[in-house]
Amino acid sequence: MHPLSTLFDPRSLAILGASNDPNKVGGRPLAFLLKAQWPGRILPVNPGAALVQGVAAYPSLEAIEGSIDAAIIALPAAQVVSAAKACIERGIKALQIFSADIDLGEVVELAGRSGVKVLGPNSLGLFNVHSAYFATFATALDGAWPSAGSIGVATQSGAVGSYFFGMAQARGLAFSHFVATGNEADVDVADCIDFLAQDANTRMIVAAIEGCQDGRKLIDAIRHARSFGKPVLLMKVGVSSAGAQAAATHTGSLAGEDRVFDAALIQAGAKRLFSLEALVDAAYVASVGPMPSNDGLMVITTSGGVGVLSADAAELGGMGLPQISQDTAAAIKQLVPLADGLNPVDTSAAILGDLSVFARISDLALRKSEASSVLLYLAHIPRNPQHWSQLEAPLLALRESYPAMAFVAVGLAGDTITKRLEAQGFAVFTDPSRAVLALAACAAGARLQPEESLSGENTESLASRRLGPGLNTEPMARAALESQGISFAPQQTIVRVEDALQAASSVGYPLVLKIVSPDIAHKSEAGGVKLGITSDHALLDAIEVMQASVKQAHPQARTEGFLLARQLTGGVEMLVGAHHDPVFGPVITVGAGGVNTEVLRDTCLHLAPVTPAQAKVMLQSLRIAPLLSGFRGTAPVDIEALARTVARVSEIAWANPQLRGIELNPVLATAYGAYALDALIDEGV
Amino acid sequence: MHPLSTLFDPRSLAILGASNDPNKVGGRPLAFLLKAQWPGRILPVNPGAALVQGVAAYPSLEAIEGSIDAAIIALPAAQVVSAAKACIERGIKALQIFSADIDLGEVVELAGRSGVKVLGPNSLGLFNVHSAYFATFATALDGAWPSAGSIGVATQSGAVGSYFFGMAQARGLAFSHFVATGNEADVDVADCIDFLAQDANTRMIVAAIEGCQDGRKLIDAIRHARSFGKPVLLMKVGVSSAGAQAAATHTGSLAGEDRVFDAALIQAGAKRLFSLEALVDAAYVASVGPMPSNDGLMVITTSGGVGVLSADAAELGGMGLPQISQDTAAAIKQLVPLADGLNPVDTSAAILGDLSVFARISDLALRKSEASSVLLYLAHIPRNPQHWSQLEAPLLALRESYPAMAFVAVGLAGDTITKRLEAQGFAVFTDPSRAVLALAACAAGARLQPEESLSGENTESLASRRLGPGLNTEPMARAALESQGISFAPQQTIVRVEDALQAASSVGYPLVLKIVSPDIAHKSEAGGVKLGITSDHALLDAIEVMQASVKQAHPQARTEGFLLARQLTGGVEMLVGAHHDPVFGPVITVGAGGVNTEVLRDTCLHLAPVTPAQAKVMLQSLRIAPLLSGFRGTAPVDIEALARTVARVSEIAWANPQLRGIELNPVLATAYGAYALDALIDEGV
Repeated sequence: MHPLSTLFDPRSLAILGASNDPNKVGGRPLAFLLKAQWPGRILPVNPGAALVQGVAAYPSLEAIEGSIDAAIIALPAAQVVSAAKACIERGIKALQIFSADIDLGEVVELAGRSGVKVLGPNSLGLFNVHSAYFATFATALDGAWPSAGSIGVATQSGAVGSYFFGMAQARGLAFSHFVATGNEADVDVADCIDFLAQDANTRMIVAAIEGCQDGRKLIDAIRHARSFGKPVLLMKVGVSSAGAQAAATHTGSLAGEDRVFDAALIQAGAKRLFSLEALVDAAYVASVGPMPSNDGLMVITTSGGVGVLSADAAELGGMGLPQISQDTAAAIKQLVPLADGLNPVDTSAAILGDLSVFARISDLALRKSEASSVLLYLAHIPRNPQHWSQLEAPLLALRESYPAMAFVAVGLAGDTITKRLEAQGFAVFTDPSRAVLALAACAAGARLQPEESLSGENTESLASRRLGPGLNTEPMARAALESQGISFAPQQTIVRVEDALQAASSVGYPLVLKIVSPDIAHKSEAGGVKLGITSDHALLDAIEVMQASVKQAHPQARTEGFLLARQLTGGVEMLVGAHHDPVFGPVITVGAGGVNTEVLRDTCLHLAPVTPAQAKVMLQSLRIAPLLSGFRGTAPVDIEALARTVARVSEIAWANPQLRGIELNPVLATAYGAYALDALIDEGV
Repeated sequence: MHPLSTLFDPRSLAILGASNDPNKVGGRPLAFLLKAQWPGRILPVNPGAALVQGVAAYPSLEAIEGSIDAAIIALPAAQVVSAAKACIERGIKALQIFSADIDLGEVVELAGRSGVKVLGPNSLGLFNVHSAYFATFATALDGAWPSAGSIGVATQSGAVGSYFFGMAQARGLAFSHFVATGNEADVDVADCIDFLAQDANTRMIVAAIEGCQDGRKLIDAIRHARSFGKPVLLMKVGVSSAGAQAAATHTGSLAGEDRVFDAALIQAGAKRLFSLEALVDAAYVASVGPMPSNDGLMVITTSGGVGVLSADAAELGGMGLPQISQDTAAAIKQLVPLADGLNPVDTSAAILGDLSVFARISDLALRKSEASSVLLYLAHIPRNPQHWSQLEAPLLALRESYPAMAFVAVGLAGDTITKRLEAQGFAVFTDPSRAVLALAACAAGARLQPEESLSGENTESLASRRLGPGLNTEPMARAALESQGISFAPQQTIVRVEDALQAASSVGYPLVLKIVSPDIAHKSEAGGVKLGITSDHALLDAIEVMQASVKQAHPQARTEGFLLARQLTGGVEMLVGAHHDPVFGPVITVGAGGVNTEVLRDTCLHLAPVTPAQAKVMLQSLRIAPLLSGFRGTAPVDIEALARTVARVSEIAWANPQLRGIELNPVLATAYGAYALDALIDEGV
């Protein structure tokens, strides 16, 4: 049994604060349960009434005999905590708290010890359509009563979730569950996804979150759903800076850095959508017919121009248009001389003479196709009764011939024909671009496969990567990282100027001179870095100049000496870094390094740790990747060495959650290895 | 009078091939004109009937007395050319050719000499709603008859255009004109935009093109429309590679390079949209109320989550959310204690107690706001009669208080309430993100101002930039460009190896050695470039090695000597190039140069010529722009010198349309000037 089974499907429910008025928060769940004829035991608790909405009520929890599975607490804020504690003591296993602005810390701690699950505060409640269990006060149910279907909805914001529900109802979607987690003192969206993953009535999961406290838990829940073959469509509000600001004001949750979130979602194999309508569209396509099993789309169109629009949208959404074979093209051209033998297949308006030809062309195009989605552009035909009467039967027969494919019909169809097409497994859209993007969102589930080994699953083996404290100067950071196998350019640190020449002769010219100070983060700006030193004379000069300019820039800074490093030439400057994300924990970043770090902002993120193989995929996704494989006659860099460095840094980040960040910038990727030229470790406060 | 006035609004129309059957191409225009009660003189020509659809018909053109303004030629393809010639001889000023696959070259030449305008071939025709002139066979009119309004539609593809018309009709949009230009033997979309620009009934122009032959004419037409204060919403099908391929197959026109098209559109001040639905949405917002006069959007929402979604969409669409003042925020908080004092203004569900508060908060937020658009998120309220009865009157009063603002209401509203809101000047959407993007498309008209001086307007002054032939080696290209004021690094060309040391002493070390050959385009790959030569000895060595490796790579290549150039150090490597676009003519490109050219693909395009001021704006739009203004302590480059180089290359490109391309790569942008290090001129075949 799943830990949330009782929350979503109890046999008995107490309603504390049950009201006779079906418009009040305490009255609505009761009214909905009665309307749905829920077969469970409803136990209204109200000290002032023997009957509530016709149901026998109890003056108190104590007055109820027998066991109680779940309770709704619809009481004034000041009474919630003590009521919740009483419920837990009574042995109730699932609580829903509707009120906002309540500190449930104490309740959640108590609940945790007793295996009790708490939904809320500030939750709109939940419903389970297949069980007829409507434990919610959502006004959305006034407008439209849900039919039992296969879409499970988990949303943080009740307002966003119930508006999505309203939009989806208007499109005829059918649901298995709906839950609004609110302020998530205990149960969060990740828990609900995990429940829906194993629920037999749920075929796809739609989730809307504003932020989350534990990113890795969310990712694990999504991977769990994917392991059951269920696609997860997820919307996270708060992409833009303005949006993130508004989200932070609106909820208590941390928004996380949006790019980390995107990287993590791809690892989990979920598709992120960016508007409510896109979410509804994708869920609609998925509920009407089968999910596409790959990215291939066949477009059959009566208009060349709409074919082009569809091809554009396919590229935008990441779908491909598999070409049809020459044989098939020839066969199509026998039916319609003008038709292009391509995908999009342009039947041209020539088919208006005999519309059954449209379905025959489609059949030819699909027969040997690798595509698993098809878009049929019907233009005005469904609106013209004379034309439609010729086309409808052949289209339905075509649909039956390809039961595993996702079919979308695009055209100006009225409600009646739309309903008829939907019943036969066609999704119907008016706008071709939007239809393609909805198919693409569904197909993404096939493309985005969850990564097999996710972060932190063999923590034990990384124990040896733990570092001690005191890493806040470059030499100390370097020493620690070198001991973990990171390669650096040859270098030496000196405390006394007198040791400079001897150090130089062991490091070798040309060399770079850097100031060593725990107080100076940006050494270049302070005159604390000098490149291209090629002689003893130049070295001594540079030390003198550097002492003066650092003193001037940072009079108070402690200086602990100088670092002399061999100046390597050639190669590609890379950034290898890791930081501790408040939501997802350690995250590894690779990208363009040196001056290009801030100019190009060309980086790829991944939850740490990563394997060298994963690091290679990250490196290959960069815009500057061509530089790594040799460019205009230069030798390719040793990508294996670079990937090993990335993987190692990610392991160190994973094993050292106490560190705020590690940055090697630049790492010089050369044909003969990858060498860090600079290292910074941020130990936090 | 505009050259297309007769085409769009004749007083008499001959229909050659007029048919009694209102379903045939030759019968439909007559049926539509009769239905619309067009007051002009209808002249059906049909040798076999005295009456066509009840109208007196003529056996031939000759049989018609008096003057004829326009003619539709709905005849079999084989008869079209001779009929068109007869029309022109008869003095008819406007012709429409419905048939496809006809070569109208001869007809168009004859028409040009007589000031006759020809629409088609393969045109669906046109209509002018205010004149009741329906000279089209579009089946779209069967489904929905247009009301007279202010949207003018010019489309190349009849199928795309009439589907747009069908979608727009379903949204209640009203039109001034609709024209489908088809294969554009003569009249093209640009001509039609130019006509609609000066038409008194047209307030906004919607255009859909697949490609165009003369890009500068299109841009001029759009600027003409903008000069009348009319926004132009334009869709060009064929963004993706797959789309462009399909577009090329579908029409005879050249698609142009998509990025050139985008750059040109921005210069013209038009907004490009990427789906039919986005086009309909924007036209809908613009027809319901006033156009936004700036990019500022005020969002007032009952749900924080939807506020975030709206803010995200605003950022995506390029709109800003002006903050409200502290005074206003304080006043709002007096009405609703929980409301955030920000934009989006989150009224929270607290207003459900007294919904008139929603309008009062909105009024406070808008009173001193710089925003010219407002989005009101109403959630389920319009669907709840009890709630809506409280809110409707205050909302309408609010609308009246801000007549110049664009209002969008987002919520689950039925048809009745939607219609009522639209009549009062609210656009109504269900999806908040889509509503914001539609507002953003309208607001873009205010942001994108057409550039004042467009290319080629003072051609005369550029006569001195003309170059002679024979520029296909680097020294010749360099000499020609230097004579036009482009700065190069010091260099000399030698024919004999014996002259190398003397040339080196005049150029100065360190220097770069390059092979000179008209047959080798990629010198580096052939071993024809050697950097970092610092001594006479190294120079002679390098010459020897280079001779051998070039010989090996290109045994057949003619070599004409060596080029010795001073190797400048520091600075930023830039690309300055120009090419001749088949649609838009000379185009100037600036971007990241050297190795970064192909890796970063960081470029900005503009129609040539540009002024130095325009060149600076282009440079500042690059991702690598921060490198130009000094980075990590390096001195800023001489941006004025770089901009002068860009402007000069653009002038040379403009004055020399015979050249296929000019490329200076790299141009070294330094603190003390911009110096081309390499020059390539492509003289074409």
